[in-house]
Amino acid sequence: MTIVLPYRHKVQYYETDMMGIVHHSNYIRWFEECRIDYMEQLGYNYQEVEKQGIEFPVLGVSCNYKSSVCFGETVQIQSWFSLLTTTRMSFNYRVTDAVSGKLRATGESRHCYCRITDHKPVQLNKTLPEIYSLFNSWAEEERQKSQ
Amino acid sequence: MTIVLPYRHKVQYYETDMMGIVHHSNYIRWFEECRIDYMEQLGYNYQEVEKQGIEFPVLGVSCNYKSSVCFGETVQIQSWFSLLTTTRMSFNYRVTDAVSGKLRATGESRHCYCRITDHKPVQLNKTLPEIYSLFNSWAEEERQKSQ
Amino acid sequence: MTIVLPYRHKVQYYETDMMGIVHHSNYIRWFEECRIDYMEQLGYNYQEVEKQGIEFPVLGVSCNYKSSVCFGETVQIQSWFSLLTTTRMSFNYRVTDAVSGKLRATGESRHCYCRITDHKPVQLNKTLPEIYSLFNSWAEEERQKSQ
Amino acid sequence: MTIVLPYRHKVQYYETDMMGIVHHSNYIRWFEECRIDYMEQLGYNYQEVEKQGIEFPVLGVSCNYKSSVCFGETVQIQSWFSLLTTTRMSFNYRVTDAVSGKLRATGESRHCYCRITDHKPVQLNKTLPEIYSLFNSWAEEERQKSQ
Repeated sequence: MTIVLPYRHKVQYYETDMMGIVHHSNYIRWFEECRIDYMEQLGYNYQEVEKQGIEFPVLGVSCNYKSSVCFGETVQIQSWFSLLTTTRMSFNYRVTDAVSGKLRATGESRHCYCRITDHKPVQLNKTLPEIYSLFNSWAEEERQKSQ
Repeated sequence: MTIVLPYRHKVQYYETDMMGIVHHSNYIRWFEECRIDYMEQLGYNYQEVEKQGIEFPVLGVSCNYKSSVCFGETVQIQSWFSLLTTTRMSFNYRVTDAVSGKLRATGESRHCYCRITDHKPVQLNKTLPEIYSLFNSWAEEERQKSQ
Repeated sequence: MTIVLPYRHKVQYYETDMMGIVHHSNYIRWFEECRIDYMEQLGYNYQEVEKQGIEFPVLGVSCNYKSSVCFGETVQIQSWFSLLTTTRMSFNYRVTDAVSGKLRATGESRHCYCRITDHKPVQLNKTLPEIYSLFNSWAEEERQKSQ
Repeated sequence: MTIVLPYRHKVQYYETDMMGIVHHSNYIRWFEECRIDYMEQLGYNYQEVEKQGIEFPVLGVSCNYKSSVCFGETVQIQSWFSLLTTTRMSFNYRVTDAVSGKLRATGESRHCYCRITDHKPVQLNKTLPEIYSLFNSWAEEERQKSQ
């Protein structure tokens, strides 16, 4: 069975703002880093899928900030499918400090599946059946864990 | 009576990504631009308030993407208080195309009030009574408009 | 005769870093904002040129920081052709405070002309003769002014 | 003897632009990532030095782009002292593809040493003698290697 490792991001100086902490917009970028890493660990290759002409635009995103993150710290981010259907998928995120484990933030992103050429929505089970099957078995596992 | 003008942002090349559209994380930054502009139009001066040692950390943020924004376009962003209490405030955002008026995104941000020195929460009506009164009269007006 | 207005950029909160000033990488982005604005003022349309399949990749960039820029300030940026040939162009930049006129930074960027489809270099006078003629007359004027 | 490992950066989706490649401003941020990593490997702790009230503002930066970098690639960045005096230091950078070794960019950054409280320049050998000695022995080694 595949074991997904949490994603790690070392906080960069340019990610801080004059409040002395990481600017809140960067968490949205970290979610993207984490999501791509997560899907790659499941066996998905972003560039290959783009070559096949499918993209996963972001329909919505949210982040709840729990405690601030400072330069020099490393965050650990876990992500998992909170929803997977033939037309939509959503991810949940949980950001913690890599050393202390203290909760930094939680968040979510929602996506659809589109053809790159005309940005029209597609059904993932029809256009990328293998990827869909891969994601679905994983989402199923997470549904069971969360019960 | 003060009339608040919607904020305008011209989309920059560096805000695009390889999907050919604005990267979704930038909307969170536009919300900040718009929020500061909005408060300034109400008579608030961000730097002055920071000198008085008060900051408005972001507790949460969300964005729902309705249609994509491209390089060369200008977006118009409206923001307004969706909540204002002595310990919290929230803003709603509405992003439209400046020319066609087409809806691009909606969003929200939630904030508390903190002392800069120790990041401890404060009550805005006690620490910045004039600002609180200013914001409150405006929030009240918006509550009435929305009914 | 066309008069080119200097470009203005209001400094955003998210552009600052924990040193309390604008992060140095943002000046490179401001140069891009300014360069596009400058070319647009000369009568050039970026999107139109991209539709014609020509792009202006950056070959090199440099910035010399003279004094720091803070949140809330507005900078004024002037740019002009420092070189224009059939295969290359370079711009110089001068960043000053919009109020005090104090020098903030100077810089340069160097570009070539490429076909978008295969990223192969092209000669601007052959692929976009009108744009080349437009730029050239302007570059000539600046050569004369600088003597 | 300390062996400094080259810095590695995995290219993120949000670092690309509509040209389909990494936006050129990000290289300046990578230089910062690399420079901090390099100094940390030499035994320097950025946050500790900041606590002692010393900062290393950027006086100038330059980058020469040799070939484009795409999403999904990993770059390897080497940095070394190109200059070290009691009042100034400079770094050179060399960005290559981590797999093919192909040259992506070269660059430089120039820095002075300042007190954080009043941003006044200081002499590194007087304010941080141990750090200066550490950097100097390393800069010396690199001077010898390059001969």
